[in-house]
Amino acid sequence: MQQYFMNSQAQSQFQVTDRETLKHMFQVMRLSEDDHVVIVFSDHRKRLAKVLDSQNHLFEIVEELDDNVELPVQVTIASGFPKADKLDLVTQKATELGAHAIWSFPADWSVVKWDGKKLAKKAEKLEKIALGAAEQSKRNLVPEVVLFERKVDFLAELSHFDKIFIAYEESAKDGEKAALAKALSSLKKGDKILFIFGPEGGISPKEIALFEGAGAIKVGLGPRIMRTETAPLYALSAVSYALELNA
Amino acid sequence: MQQYFMNSQAQSQFQVTDRETLKHMFQVMRLSEDDHVVIVFSDHRKRLAKVLDSQNHLFEIVEELDDNVELPVQVTIASGFPKADKLDLVTQKATELGAHAIWSFPADWSVVKWDGKKLAKKAEKLEKIALGAAEQSKRNLVPEVVLFERKVDFLAELSHFDKIFIAYEESAKDGEKAALAKALSSLKKGDKILFIFGPEGGISPKEIALFEGAGAIKVGLGPRIMRTETAPLYALSAVSYALELNA
Repeated sequence: MQQYFMNSQAQSQFQVTDRETLKHMFQVMRLSEDDHVVIVFSDHRKRLAKVLDSQNHLFEIVEELDDNVELPVQVTIASGFPKADKLDLVTQKATELGAHAIWSFPADWSVVKWDGKKLAKKAEKLEKIALGAAEQSKRNLVPEVVLFERKVDFLAELSHFDKIFIAYEESAKDGEKAALAKALSSLKKGDKILFIFGPEGGISPKEIALFEGAGAIKVGLGPRIMRTETAPLYALSAVSYALELNA
Repeated sequence: MQQYFMNSQAQSQFQVTDRETLKHMFQVMRLSEDDHVVIVFSDHRKRLAKVLDSQNHLFEIVEELDDNVELPVQVTIASGFPKADKLDLVTQKATELGAHAIWSFPADWSVVKWDGKKLAKKAEKLEKIALGAAEQSKRNLVPEVVLFERKVDFLAELSHFDKIFIAYEESAKDGEKAALAKALSSLKKGDKILFIFGPEGGISPKEIALFEGAGAIKVGLGPRIMRTETAPLYALSAVSYALELNA
């Protein structure tokens, strides 16, 4: 069943006004009276709704649905600005894999320089990708997308997390294996966790020190070298496997 | 350090003749006498080699390296032919994530129809992608790429695996969670395992029955709906996490 997000409080009857949503509902899906869709309001709960009036885009809730597909912990991934359109892929796949938020920041070794205007345009594109992927993967929420223009603003957020991991290639090379599994086993439901990934060139020693100063721990993600856009997908899959399939 | 694969037996002195490899070595990397590279011969072992003669492309082994980054089990992923260029992404990412082989087959619900000629061209492209990704992720081998023209030839291979998993969305919906973790915990080093993924439309009931008849078990990969190209990345990450990080 097609799912849509509504950025408003749940109400038993409601009108859809968002242009993109309307276009998908009535042009792509060609909904008509009595057709059903799943609507997720701002409370992140799914409800079955039916079309009351396709001319005026009116709907009525017919059933509360109880399926919740969110990870038991809130996982934010934060990538140093990577090259080109890699964040597009990261955003789509991380949404499918259950990310709570998708952040990116200007890392010391980021090659790209994105200023405020370019950044805003990029964020808008990524928000659309996240919305589409969240609808398709039947998420209960659309991951938040934040592109930090200044690293200092990203650093200021670190204190809000219960656990911070730095995906660190050298950890893998040193034969470090157990840090992630050990940390995941100590998480409690609802914990806020953050994974930090470097851009193509990696994370600078200065950044490592800053993150560690904020309580972050370095973790290896297996012995193979992954590209910068692949590591977040591994991390999210590992969290899902550890907490949803092997709990 | 740059790594290259040589499709030949290891020898203490050797000449590189593959055109693509030569191009990368001497035009992209601009190697000259005494520069070092890592060479992986057909025995899958890494060796440090130095350039003896850059005009004649002669190298000499200077050290045997003992790092092995292969998963402890051989994982083959087999996707029903997906649309467009999705196999490109699957091949690159699955190589980074440690796949032993990357297969695809014409599933009942595959939309695309690829005949012999198109298939051969596609396989050639995917082999190049796998080679590039294997070099970059420092694999000890280049995953085998096989695109089956007929499903019957794919089915004939099933008996060669120790364990076969069907990635099955409905398992997730039914709340099935533990099958994959349980099966992974019973694997022995060197086991050959196969994950089967449907195309966009999923796996047909007839195919499920065929695969189950060959000993396959259905497993859920968490509660979220993943696109066809994302599920193999989750599966490989889960195998790595279970067997390399949480063993």
